[in-house]
Amino acid sequence: MAGNSFGKIFKLTTFGESHGAAIGGIIDGCPAGLSLDFEAINREMQRRKPGQSAIVTQRKEEDEVKFLSGIFEGKTTGTPIGFLIENTDQKSKDYSHIKDIYRPSHADFTYDKKYGIRDYRGGGRSSARETACRVVAGAIAKQLLKGIKITAYVSSVGEMELTEPYSEVDFSEIEKNPVRCPDAEIASEMVNYIKSIRKEGDTVGGTVSCVIQNVPVGLGEPVFDKLHAELGKAMLSINAVKGFEYGSGFAGTAMKGSVHNDSFKADGSTKTNHSGGIQGGISNGQDIYFKVAFKPVATIMQKQETIDNKGNKVTAEGKGRHDPCVVPRAVPIVEAMAALVIADFWLLSKISKI
Amino acid sequence: MAGNSFGKIFKLTTFGESHGAAIGGIIDGCPAGLSLDFEAINREMQRRKPGQSAIVTQRKEEDEVKFLSGIFEGKTTGTPIGFLIENTDQKSKDYSHIKDIYRPSHADFTYDKKYGIRDYRGGGRSSARETACRVVAGAIAKQLLKGIKITAYVSSVGEMELTEPYSEVDFSEIEKNPVRCPDAEIASEMVNYIKSIRKEGDTVGGTVSCVIQNVPVGLGEPVFDKLHAELGKAMLSINAVKGFEYGSGFAGTAMKGSVHNDSFKADGSTKTNHSGGIQGGISNGQDIYFKVAFKPVATIMQKQETIDNKGNKVTAEGKGRHDPCVVPRAVPIVEAMAALVIADFWLLSKISKI
Amino acid sequence: MAGNSFGKIFKLTTFGESHGAAIGGIIDGCPAGLSLDFEAINREMQRRKPGQSAIVTQRKEEDEVKFLSGIFEGKTTGTPIGFLIENTDQKSKDYSHIKDIYRPSHADFTYDKKYGIRDYRGGGRSSARETACRVVAGAIAKQLLKGIKITAYVSSVGEMELTEPYSEVDFSEIEKNPVRCPDAEIASEMVNYIKSIRKEGDTVGGTVSCVIQNVPVGLGEPVFDKLHAELGKAMLSINAVKGFEYGSGFAGTAMKGSVHNDSFKADGSTKTNHSGGIQGGISNGQDIYFKVAFKPVATIMQKQETIDNKGNKVTAEGKGRHDPCVVPRAVPIVEAMAALVIADFWLLSKISKI
Amino acid sequence: MAGNSFGKIFKLTTFGESHGAAIGGIIDGCPAGLSLDFEAINREMQRRKPGQSAIVTQRKEEDEVKFLSGIFEGKTTGTPIGFLIENTDQKSKDYSHIKDIYRPSHADFTYDKKYGIRDYRGGGRSSARETACRVVAGAIAKQLLKGIKITAYVSSVGEMELTEPYSEVDFSEIEKNPVRCPDAEIASEMVNYIKSIRKEGDTVGGTVSCVIQNVPVGLGEPVFDKLHAELGKAMLSINAVKGFEYGSGFAGTAMKGSVHNDSFKADGSTKTNHSGGIQGGISNGQDIYFKVAFKPVATIMQKQETIDNKGNKVTAEGKGRHDPCVVPRAVPIVEAMAALVIADFWLLSKISKI
Repeated sequence: MAGNSFGKIFKLTTFGESHGAAIGGIIDGCPAGLSLDFEAINREMQRRKPGQSAIVTQRKEEDEVKFLSGIFEGKTTGTPIGFLIENTDQKSKDYSHIKDIYRPSHADFTYDKKYGIRDYRGGGRSSARETACRVVAGAIAKQLLKGIKITAYVSSVGEMELTEPYSEVDFSEIEKNPVRCPDAEIASEMVNYIKSIRKEGDTVGGTVSCVIQNVPVGLGEPVFDKLHAELGKAMLSINAVKGFEYGSGFAGTAMKGSVHNDSFKADGSTKTNHSGGIQGGISNGQDIYFKVAFKPVATIMQKQETIDNKGNKVTAEGKGRHDPCVVPRAVPIVEAMAALVIADFWLLSKISKI
Repeated sequence: MAGNSFGKIFKLTTFGESHGAAIGGIIDGCPAGLSLDFEAINREMQRRKPGQSAIVTQRKEEDEVKFLSGIFEGKTTGTPIGFLIENTDQKSKDYSHIKDIYRPSHADFTYDKKYGIRDYRGGGRSSARETACRVVAGAIAKQLLKGIKITAYVSSVGEMELTEPYSEVDFSEIEKNPVRCPDAEIASEMVNYIKSIRKEGDTVGGTVSCVIQNVPVGLGEPVFDKLHAELGKAMLSINAVKGFEYGSGFAGTAMKGSVHNDSFKADGSTKTNHSGGIQGGISNGQDIYFKVAFKPVATIMQKQETIDNKGNKVTAEGKGRHDPCVVPRAVPIVEAMAALVIADFWLLSKISKI
Repeated sequence: MAGNSFGKIFKLTTFGESHGAAIGGIIDGCPAGLSLDFEAINREMQRRKPGQSAIVTQRKEEDEVKFLSGIFEGKTTGTPIGFLIENTDQKSKDYSHIKDIYRPSHADFTYDKKYGIRDYRGGGRSSARETACRVVAGAIAKQLLKGIKITAYVSSVGEMELTEPYSEVDFSEIEKNPVRCPDAEIASEMVNYIKSIRKEGDTVGGTVSCVIQNVPVGLGEPVFDKLHAELGKAMLSINAVKGFEYGSGFAGTAMKGSVHNDSFKADGSTKTNHSGGIQGGISNGQDIYFKVAFKPVATIMQKQETIDNKGNKVTAEGKGRHDPCVVPRAVPIVEAMAALVIADFWLLSKISKI
Repeated sequence: MAGNSFGKIFKLTTFGESHGAAIGGIIDGCPAGLSLDFEAINREMQRRKPGQSAIVTQRKEEDEVKFLSGIFEGKTTGTPIGFLIENTDQKSKDYSHIKDIYRPSHADFTYDKKYGIRDYRGGGRSSARETACRVVAGAIAKQLLKGIKITAYVSSVGEMELTEPYSEVDFSEIEKNPVRCPDAEIASEMVNYIKSIRKEGDTVGGTVSCVIQNVPVGLGEPVFDKLHAELGKAMLSINAVKGFEYGSGFAGTAMKGSVHNDSFKADGSTKTNHSGGIQGGISNGQDIYFKVAFKPVATIMQKQETIDNKGNKVTAEGKGRHDPCVVPRAVPIVEAMAALVIADFWLLSKISKI
């Protein structure tokens, strides 16, 4: 019941610490016969990897994925897909000074108390480095879900916000700037802001929006495993996430039912989509869209008062290489987790009725 | 893999449709030896039941729980607790007119497409009547979690909002008014607003806030089953929920790390609590707090254009007895789901280390 | 993780004690659209129920199943099927004398030690009465598996054994005698033997054989969830079972590979079937056959030395109504559990490849 | 739901094919704080590894385990333990001749039909090479279960049988001979017999017996996850296993209840142990003992008539390096699987009662 697996049918289990020899995982339940596009997997890894631009951490990891099983002559065999990503640029010495220190708003304190032991190097298991494994699995899930299109982008950094609804966004702009905001002008401001924040030795939060298109009707398993409930869990399981809303979200709470309700057209589609493509926990074929809130990164390059594991007051100051804002690199992670959720329910939906 | 179970160790499985003979469930994994306070269970049921006040649905259900197993001489035996709640006041005829009609923003369309068949009476399985079973299980979980205090309340109805942070709220006020908002004045306005909305034949959304106090350090199972990820899933699985945020939530995305970070005091507690009592997916002993967004109820007493299952345009108009706003009755449901999550992780945490 | 659920896709969870108000269960994951034959379900219940013949326990239970959900207009809806069987003829007073006593080879001692409390009436949860719920679910699974034929029969009682291989057995004979052995002559001897054993106040064990025919190729999920591993677990979970073997079984251990190997014919079928229809944990389309060992019933109508819960020596003597030999009533239970395993893997097999 | 995980709390997931780059696994749920004895793990690997003696396959694999995560400064951290065993001596060319051929009583046919694709090299995923991963996990489970002693040994090879009950066996003899039978004389005959069988190009089956001592009372989760049901599943999931019996097993079916029942002594122990240490699916503190049946290895060095994947008749003849009899190498695998089952239930039992 330890929580290192995600999914029921298309199931990912991950392992690995930030500064161990390697991280990796096992995908169990990928159907046989899927021809894998390894280049596409690599592209997803490149979108997440550190050092990709001036506004992210400068740790250098190639994040090359080694597949060890479950694939034969380029196709999945139905047996578990084991994979490995070696850690090559960990600098554990950067962390020896925090060996006994609980950094504010990190997981140092809670891991130590829960387990009675912690691998302090680079945050150990609590590091977002683990999400590289999710991107591997998500990239395979995306290939399984041919025709379903999953697109995430940065919709805010600090107080800078892209206010257009997703339907007015030009997705082709997303990857044209390092911050992955589909409005070139706002993106440019965001980049500058992140750079200035970094200079202050500070960090900032933001939001990632995601849209899933061409979803078949019928995905989701009420009453507990509603499609949006699993999407929410998936997103909330990503490091630094503080909130999730789909469709009309929090804003929808202020609406009246007569306005909020999505009228059907003759073909079963709806005139509006406050439902966010999900009704009663099951996809209705309309676009699914949701937003994910990321807090500011906890590691700041400023002196902070904190305590050590004996309760002594000490001062901590970030060393090592860190992201001043996680949302640009979170974009492929959000897509990956969405792909895992959709793949799982898509497979399950094939056996909903006789 | 059908989704009618929740929890891993303390596991609830529910069954039942709104207008079937009964709804019920099985709680598997409740430790043996717990003396049950049946009156306390009943009190929770009363808080959720229909007909309890002028601002909720007037369906009359006593919601009396019959326990069929797993309890001997007032104590849990460690064997599964089977329970039943009979449906006594269902008026299925109220629904014959929507037999072939897909009501806007209901689950009629999606259930029909997913399963190829639907029990249209009262929304069938998609009805929030199912949540009565969650309240039963949650009430038992609360008793297991002696000392941990779970308190939910209405923090907004439509645009009327209680803006105080939870720490300034007087919890003793919550149950003194039918809307369960702990500020008497705002509560009174909310009640009036809900009444006026109902007169219009319309509905409105709102938010429920929840606080969990006296939580032991160490609950939550990273990396996927983070405490807040399971809380999020639990809340999003409740009917009509559109969003979830914990700690600083969406507002936290605009903050800088230097402001957002929670400094430790010598005793391991923190000066601020933007983390919402959870760091790295594990409880840190501070108060856990979160907010849940509920959309306006889809059933309105107004004519709406929609379609039937042949794609013909038809007009639907709500009949039956419905809530103009779900948040007052959602309060005990939010608490129940929170209790289920906490109970599960609390049991698991006992075997985290040797 | 309490163990009251079976199956992953087609999942049964049961509850109930021998002398509680009712026993019952929830079947979650039965595909929608299955027209149920309630008469067929009832026939299976009749095969298991007490009091059906002179050689079984004389407790009188109609074992009428009440379905409470998941079925609409005679068809499954894809939502959980809740069902109930009331206990009508429990005579708890028969058990007050064993309230504090640990009956030899019963579960009194282990339940008491594990849970610190036990419902002593009729063995509580450890009673084979629970298997009535399995027969309900198995009967539905059988209907789902149209075309697949599952047939069990008694192959030995004590030392009386039916030595013919299953392929020489006339299945139409099975239900013609109360012991459910397909050889009329041996059956008659078995009946007489069971009667004489009962007169002695004693009990005896036996074996049940089972054959599954017309199984599609491809059921089973290596490496841990091999088809025969799940069948084995299913059978071993039935009360009083001590062993399981499939195909050549224990006898096969003495064979040479050159004799044991099953040669293929051009159509993919095999000339022999020592494999028992399963190779590498996956069905190969040949008949699956296995044998299940049942110990003698622990309750005997003789005085036995034992202890009470204080460690005092006491004498126990069976009262109440008990089976002198369980195998006749175990036949439909073995079939039911086999049906649950096959249904689960059959559904899963539909998503093995793209 | 693909079946490559075992256990619920102490959970092993494995990956890898016989001739891939590596096999490996993830252990999720091992409690934190366990000091690992790597030498002890290695000793278990040596007992299973190929090439260890003249009577096993001569494939040369060092089976060195690389731990990649979940361990810090020699102790488990509570995070998932990822590990890898490289394949170094695979000779895939040995298998090119069977690329399109279905070897009798192998899993070639069923994997091909189920998945539509197969890695034919060395049997791919269906190879017993995967069990090396089980031994790794089992070795760690054994260390967790300090004080509980798990001992397996060969109790028969072909028709040569060790007839003494386990209680009369000298466990210290087991590892003194390559066949792992604790009677030196019978062991010597078995070795000679296996050698002669190998000369014939043939194979033979056998049985492995296993005893678990010092088991706490209370392990096992009725009604489906009975201790012996999980042990049975665990054993049946091992390659080549055809049967499982515990306690009195199949022989017990011929006994009368008055003989079979285990009378209690004042201290709660029993005078006899036909129950095999388990009553009602829960350990009673007495020795658990069971026997596992292994079929003769399917690969024989003789010409066999079979078919290819087009249905053409062809001749297959074993090449490569194979075991003439698996039971000597199966001994540590049986122990490992037993350790996994016991570890899982032992952890769960800590939360059975409040």
